[in-house]
Amino acid sequence: MSAAEPENTATRRGGRGARRELRSAIDTTMLPALKRGLPPVEPMSRDQIAQIDAASLAILEEVGVVFRDPVAIADWKRAGADIRDGDRVHLDRAMVRNLIATIPETFTYHARNPANNLPFGRDHSIFVPMTGAPFIEDVTGERRNPTLADLADVHKLSHMLPAIHSAAHHIVEPYDHPISQRHLRITYSSMKHSDKTFMGMTTSGRNGQDVMDMCDILFGPGYIDTHPVVTGNCNGNSPLVWDETMLGAMRAFCRRNQPVLCSPFVLGGANTPASTAATMAQLNAEALSALAYTQVVNRGCPAIYGHFLATISMKSGAPMAGTPEISLLNYMTGQMARHYGVPWRSSTMTSGPKAFDAQAGYESATTLMSVILSGAHYMWHAAGWMEAGMTCSLAKFVADAEQCAMAYRMAEGIRWDDFDAALASIRDVGPGGHYLGHPHTLEKFQSAFFMPELADNNSVEQWRAEGAIETPQRAKARVRELLTAYQEPRLDPATDEALRDYIARREREIPAADALNEEF
Amino acid sequence: MSAAEPENTATRRGGRGARRELRSAIDTTMLPALKRGLPPVEPMSRDQIAQIDAASLAILEEVGVVFRDPVAIADWKRAGADIRDGDRVHLDRAMVRNLIATIPETFTYHARNPANNLPFGRDHSIFVPMTGAPFIEDVTGERRNPTLADLADVHKLSHMLPAIHSAAHHIVEPYDHPISQRHLRITYSSMKHSDKTFMGMTTSGRNGQDVMDMCDILFGPGYIDTHPVVTGNCNGNSPLVWDETMLGAMRAFCRRNQPVLCSPFVLGGANTPASTAATMAQLNAEALSALAYTQVVNRGCPAIYGHFLATISMKSGAPMAGTPEISLLNYMTGQMARHYGVPWRSSTMTSGPKAFDAQAGYESATTLMSVILSGAHYMWHAAGWMEAGMTCSLAKFVADAEQCAMAYRMAEGIRWDDFDAALASIRDVGPGGHYLGHPHTLEKFQSAFFMPELADNNSVEQWRAEGAIETPQRAKARVRELLTAYQEPRLDPATDEALRDYIARREREIPAADALNEEF
Repeated sequence: MSAAEPENTATRRGGRGARRELRSAIDTTMLPALKRGLPPVEPMSRDQIAQIDAASLAILEEVGVVFRDPVAIADWKRAGADIRDGDRVHLDRAMVRNLIATIPETFTYHARNPANNLPFGRDHSIFVPMTGAPFIEDVTGERRNPTLADLADVHKLSHMLPAIHSAAHHIVEPYDHPISQRHLRITYSSMKHSDKTFMGMTTSGRNGQDVMDMCDILFGPGYIDTHPVVTGNCNGNSPLVWDETMLGAMRAFCRRNQPVLCSPFVLGGANTPASTAATMAQLNAEALSALAYTQVVNRGCPAIYGHFLATISMKSGAPMAGTPEISLLNYMTGQMARHYGVPWRSSTMTSGPKAFDAQAGYESATTLMSVILSGAHYMWHAAGWMEAGMTCSLAKFVADAEQCAMAYRMAEGIRWDDFDAALASIRDVGPGGHYLGHPHTLEKFQSAFFMPELADNNSVEQWRAEGAIETPQRAKARVRELLTAYQEPRLDPATDEALRDYIARREREIPAADALNEEF
Repeated sequence: MSAAEPENTATRRGGRGARRELRSAIDTTMLPALKRGLPPVEPMSRDQIAQIDAASLAILEEVGVVFRDPVAIADWKRAGADIRDGDRVHLDRAMVRNLIATIPETFTYHARNPANNLPFGRDHSIFVPMTGAPFIEDVTGERRNPTLADLADVHKLSHMLPAIHSAAHHIVEPYDHPISQRHLRITYSSMKHSDKTFMGMTTSGRNGQDVMDMCDILFGPGYIDTHPVVTGNCNGNSPLVWDETMLGAMRAFCRRNQPVLCSPFVLGGANTPASTAATMAQLNAEALSALAYTQVVNRGCPAIYGHFLATISMKSGAPMAGTPEISLLNYMTGQMARHYGVPWRSSTMTSGPKAFDAQAGYESATTLMSVILSGAHYMWHAAGWMEAGMTCSLAKFVADAEQCAMAYRMAEGIRWDDFDAALASIRDVGPGGHYLGHPHTLEKFQSAFFMPELADNNSVEQWRAEGAIETPQRAKARVRELLTAYQEPRLDPATDEALRDYIARREREIPAADALNEEF
């Protein structure tokens, strides 16, 4: 298990003392769950919300949704749904409304460190890093398949970045371990390198079960049945299909009361109509069908309205990020999710380019602003996403996290607490004066105005004298600093051993032979 | 006058035929003034708006505002204001409210090409390029002092970019002409190279008068007295000071019914209190005092609530862009301007870095989103702004303009016109199908989803095969294309000659001796 173990950075990078000193200079305290103080952007009138709702429910009644999974079909039959053509489920609107009514609007994510528990839903939102990258752009700038050691590094960064609320799961795909056993190492790495909440693999029902079993070990038997601790994601095969792999994993999570993201996968114009409003109706129908199914599996279990949003390039067919329709679909989804009273997920810092360049900045910031202003709760893919998700850039990971911290501050809204004292300083300073030396400024400056650490605002002369360093280089230096200063959160040794024993046993049971990815 | 004349690009760059062909492939049709379909972000309750209003009016009554200008003081005396200490004007709230009540909430900008007229205010907004850069980053990547030829180029780009509604004025400072005469050449370049609306120099009252005289020539005598055609900007010396230069220019514009931006210049924490809410109260007091003065000068003339927003780096004292407080101040300013029923201006694509890198993208997109979602009408500095305004980057100019086009599309809101037809395609395609060949998709794809031309969404293999080109390089190629395809809009030869005669006469009158900038 050496690859998933913490590296002995203290010895390698200059000693425990130096590391402690660096650490004390870096604030790694996690921000609480964002409590929103800004009203969301709401482009639809009540009538228009009703129009989308009605169109979606008509799709579910008349077109139906395919559940490509015998267990789900049997479940739906028992629940009284109208099944046609073997696996096409037609849901009437009363049944859909009745089922989704029991999804909790809010709950609390419990972390193994209770200081990192997170209220979730309604006014409370969290940032979660990107996941699923088959490539990493490391601090040398090389783009390559990642390893378990790389995965450990991104879990460490997630642990240390204040605006990041979760360690997620396979932020990068560890190519040095067999696919069939990978979910075990990924889960262990999330649990081991951070004491924030995390995500669980949904690559099959059985793999989902492994995640639940490991959560039982980490939190103690039965704890998770009454406490959400981990999140699964289930992508739809849009249009209007859910497959066996996703549904099997969904059941593993729902049965143990762990929330799943019910995520239609929108490639606007390719698997949805060429219309933002009709795309919304389709994705809403898809999300509702999966949300309803979570309640068939386990009435009252938490579930999260999801989607992945991209529009399609006419030139290449590639998914695009940061387009106006993505922003509009985020605002609309927020309105629909609030209409149904369920928490919802979006994708936050998506971008298309191969380099961490201006386009990456434009696209990520545009999407971040639309996600945070749409009131999304589970703000996934909030750090590292490059090349349409193919690459996780370590430099972008830390730069994105700083952008999230700024958006967080914005979304908290206006602070009025010292308004009167601040107004008094206007009288003190008067016309033509300045505030830099005023006692109120000295006391409040640091908390009043956000100070990004990765931004360069020096003079051109100073910037040149310091080597004309651009954003990716500054961010890479920050990655190195953070990894040097990283301190592993304490994990009870008996729990750690039990987790390792579980993995060892399961790896004996799961064939690994043909499972190493050829690309590695 | 050769430097301000159009270059004979047809001859230099491959002939009239090639230029015509390239031009026909590039859509340079100006978008109409944005008609907003998204509700603005409104973080303040009615009570909080009233709180800012009350605090601002108390500042105007009790602290007062310095008008460092004998003419303004005489005007204020005649208007019945309480003047103390020579130039400190104390305005009671009834007088302020009464004065600003006559500012028109909407008007139309008239361009010399009536197809480019722009409704303005309330739901209608426009994008205006950056101005005032003492440096240009040209298509070779060199950072240097600009010339009149460079100024002509950025006016040409402004003319051709669809989301840019104005040619502005000194987008870059033409260092090859004496400062004292520069405003004449700048105005001529705006008028000559574009038939969109533009801005007028406010570097002194006399210079403002020259702009008015040139507008009389361009539009015909007396036309501008009843038609807004040009915009001036007057910066405040925050806190609470307006100076003679700005006020003189303001009068030149107001008397001829041309709108001025009344722009407090916020460096948050340096010239305002260390509090977002109190900063809003101060800037609101400053803006109100200047808006009120426009109505003292000419009751009923158009005027625009303005500001420049930056927060200050604790490290260097440099202004920062894209920070959360800037977004919040934009949202708040929108609420205050709507409260008073006056149109307002913001700064759109500001950024700090010296390179057109990821930071530039993050900061510009963040600010753009906050400006467009705050409902700003005069969205200035919408293209080119780098290095805190010190440099205009040609690459960023065209890339920013594409971001503006996307934000424009977003702010138009959701299109419902073909909702039923698009829903029908969901029934046609059904579960598991795809939409790419569906007749509705073929008909609507192009209009349904925005397709950015400068974004790279190719595979990494294709991207590498094509030379691993990053955003700045793609944008530079676009600049070259546009300048090659540029066609000068027709200007009546007699009008052109009259403008040149005016400039020649004024340049004989204005001493140029010591006026060439030393840096050139």
